[in-house]
Amino acid sequence: MSETAFPLSAETSNLKRSVMRDLLCHAVDPEIISMAGGLPASEYLPVGEFLDCIETVINRDGSRALQYSPQSEALRVWIAGYMSGRGVPCTPGQIFITSGAQQGLAILSRLFLDPGGPAVIEDLAFTGIQQVTRGRGAEIRTIPVDLEEGIDLEAMEDALRRSPTPRLAVLVPNFHNPLGVTLSAEARRRAAALASEYGVPLIEDDPYAALRFSGEHLPPIKAFDDSGLVFHIGTFSKTLSPAVRLGWIVASEEMIPTITAVRESIDLESSTLLQRAVVEFLERGRLEPNLERINDAYRERCRAMVGSLEANMGELARFTRPEGGIFLWVELQEQLDTGELFDEAIERRVAFIPGSVFSGNDSHRNTMRLNFSNLSPELIEEGVKRLSDVISSAPGIR
Amino acid sequence: MSETAFPLSAETSNLKRSVMRDLLCHAVDPEIISMAGGLPASEYLPVGEFLDCIETVINRDGSRALQYSPQSEALRVWIAGYMSGRGVPCTPGQIFITSGAQQGLAILSRLFLDPGGPAVIEDLAFTGIQQVTRGRGAEIRTIPVDLEEGIDLEAMEDALRRSPTPRLAVLVPNFHNPLGVTLSAEARRRAAALASEYGVPLIEDDPYAALRFSGEHLPPIKAFDDSGLVFHIGTFSKTLSPAVRLGWIVASEEMIPTITAVRESIDLESSTLLQRAVVEFLERGRLEPNLERINDAYRERCRAMVGSLEANMGELARFTRPEGGIFLWVELQEQLDTGELFDEAIERRVAFIPGSVFSGNDSHRNTMRLNFSNLSPELIEEGVKRLSDVISSAPGIR
Repeated sequence: MSETAFPLSAETSNLKRSVMRDLLCHAVDPEIISMAGGLPASEYLPVGEFLDCIETVINRDGSRALQYSPQSEALRVWIAGYMSGRGVPCTPGQIFITSGAQQGLAILSRLFLDPGGPAVIEDLAFTGIQQVTRGRGAEIRTIPVDLEEGIDLEAMEDALRRSPTPRLAVLVPNFHNPLGVTLSAEARRRAAALASEYGVPLIEDDPYAALRFSGEHLPPIKAFDDSGLVFHIGTFSKTLSPAVRLGWIVASEEMIPTITAVRESIDLESSTLLQRAVVEFLERGRLEPNLERINDAYRERCRAMVGSLEANMGELARFTRPEGGIFLWVELQEQLDTGELFDEAIERRVAFIPGSVFSGNDSHRNTMRLNFSNLSPELIEEGVKRLSDVISSAPGIR
Repeated sequence: MSETAFPLSAETSNLKRSVMRDLLCHAVDPEIISMAGGLPASEYLPVGEFLDCIETVINRDGSRALQYSPQSEALRVWIAGYMSGRGVPCTPGQIFITSGAQQGLAILSRLFLDPGGPAVIEDLAFTGIQQVTRGRGAEIRTIPVDLEEGIDLEAMEDALRRSPTPRLAVLVPNFHNPLGVTLSAEARRRAAALASEYGVPLIEDDPYAALRFSGEHLPPIKAFDDSGLVFHIGTFSKTLSPAVRLGWIVASEEMIPTITAVRESIDLESSTLLQRAVVEFLERGRLEPNLERINDAYRERCRAMVGSLEANMGELARFTRPEGGIFLWVELQEQLDTGELFDEAIERRVAFIPGSVFSGNDSHRNTMRLNFSNLSPELIEEGVKRLSDVISSAPGIR
């Protein structure tokens, strides 16, 4: 990182400069078709309805909506009901409100991981997961991922069994970022059992669960947790709006005071105004219809992307076919390097994220992550066409 | 902290369970006159005007107000102008938006401090400062505070000079929490020079600067910073609303990318909706008149508290006479223990914070912090009267 006249902490030197932010910027250059970011569809953000909720809250609660406040009990009640409906019977006392899923990851990492301690993550993982493990100087043990099953459970068991015992493990069960793949119910049951058997806290990072647009919903890993070792993280960023900055952790009730102390040391609390407005939105029953609209759109967009990939890159690439979420994963011929193709792509006015960004060790250089949530089907088709032009004219293509 | 079947990080075991949150709860029990919390006056939160700003922003910006977004450039421009007006010439590129002042402390602590590294703090310090230093296992070197000058600069120099070199120091120059005292301009100049001389990053935590209700504004420590070693933290929590969850760091421009990486690992970003609404509020010129109303009220409330203390406890206590902010500090006879008086006070329907909470080593047991910002003068007078009844009938009083 930057040169200074004074020492920075070891942790800071382990952190990568955020790639995500740079690449998000392409999303606001109207000439570039960006499949790089992770933005929900702007057209389906419930702008008018959410404003109406804020008005109701402020007119009703007055200054209480702008004051310091304990976490919204009504929000914890709603989330506990929602999680119970997903097969995780829990009480409001087990729900902790965070500022988005990333803060859940940061809190739980602080809770379990000492610098240098072992952490188990998937060998392709969202950069935010890498920042709270690799970025904190953890001894990283990776679980190989695959494009069909998601993870190799035997490798996971090996990683958990080895001494010293890992301080935490992280999995993304639904519509994995960056892969788009989903763990089977049996794999979830097995992952929870492994956490219990080896006594390792297992963080289930689950931001995309509600974005299933085909197939059947599966119970979270937390639904198979008998030992209290699974910590579930959810968020409203992709289902309602990223600007509410609200997510949650489901944990055993006795962990909540410790989680509270860690979180207060970070930023005291989340906005009570936004918590109250989200409660109003939820209690009006607006989330379900909003999700239906979103998932209808994402189904169409994902289908357009898969169709275009099949039509234009069927011979050039393997790719995942997600049943939900916002990303899919493309593997090119082994000798290609998407990092090298990136500049050419930008020149052709199309953007993606080179897959090596998610590896932490610069491997998987022949891969890329594509986002389909924030582009119309027409732009997706044009974007994939541009991308296939870049790839098919790459030096070394066979 | 709580017992678990798995190890928690060393950092977590250093954290105290938050006392602040428990004591805030008394603020919502209408029978108790709470001088415990740190809440701004609820009556002066600009409820209607802020709602109007949100409406303007959402009607104008639509979905962009609910999407992921880079930090608001307009907000950074405003803050840079504001800080320049306070004697800290700076560019928007030197401003980093945080979720309140506590997040500024957490980020800068992550940036400089390794677990076990030396940190210099005042021997009475806001619990949030203790959590990001003591709570991270730092080797704490304290600067004695006093009720007249604020800090002992020679002791500060000793603490900075000792080997190994401290990784950071933290001062609260204006209307200190918990003491209510203010550093002179000369002390600020000297503190900046000491940071430079010993090469120690100095964090200036300055949440109350704008809440001056008597005397003249003084330049921040950052105004005397020639070396780039002073990091200034500000916030809108006390001047506009805690629920906007917005504050800032002023740093050298080359530090901003590193600060960004640390912050993104914690919670990605602050709400773009709230950033835009605050910009609207600021650009309408609403902050100044809002501050005038607040400071008129706080002047009256502080005067009521000081007057009541003089009338009821003149023989029983020494106390500070702040020129701004929201707290004052009371020292009782040495043999008294405010922790022991607390339950009796609650029974008499009055609350304060025992001073030992701010010491980190359970010293200063004969002291207490009183808040005057969120009570009417009448309630303050009644509260101090109840308190003096408790104290004057304490066992051991002389």
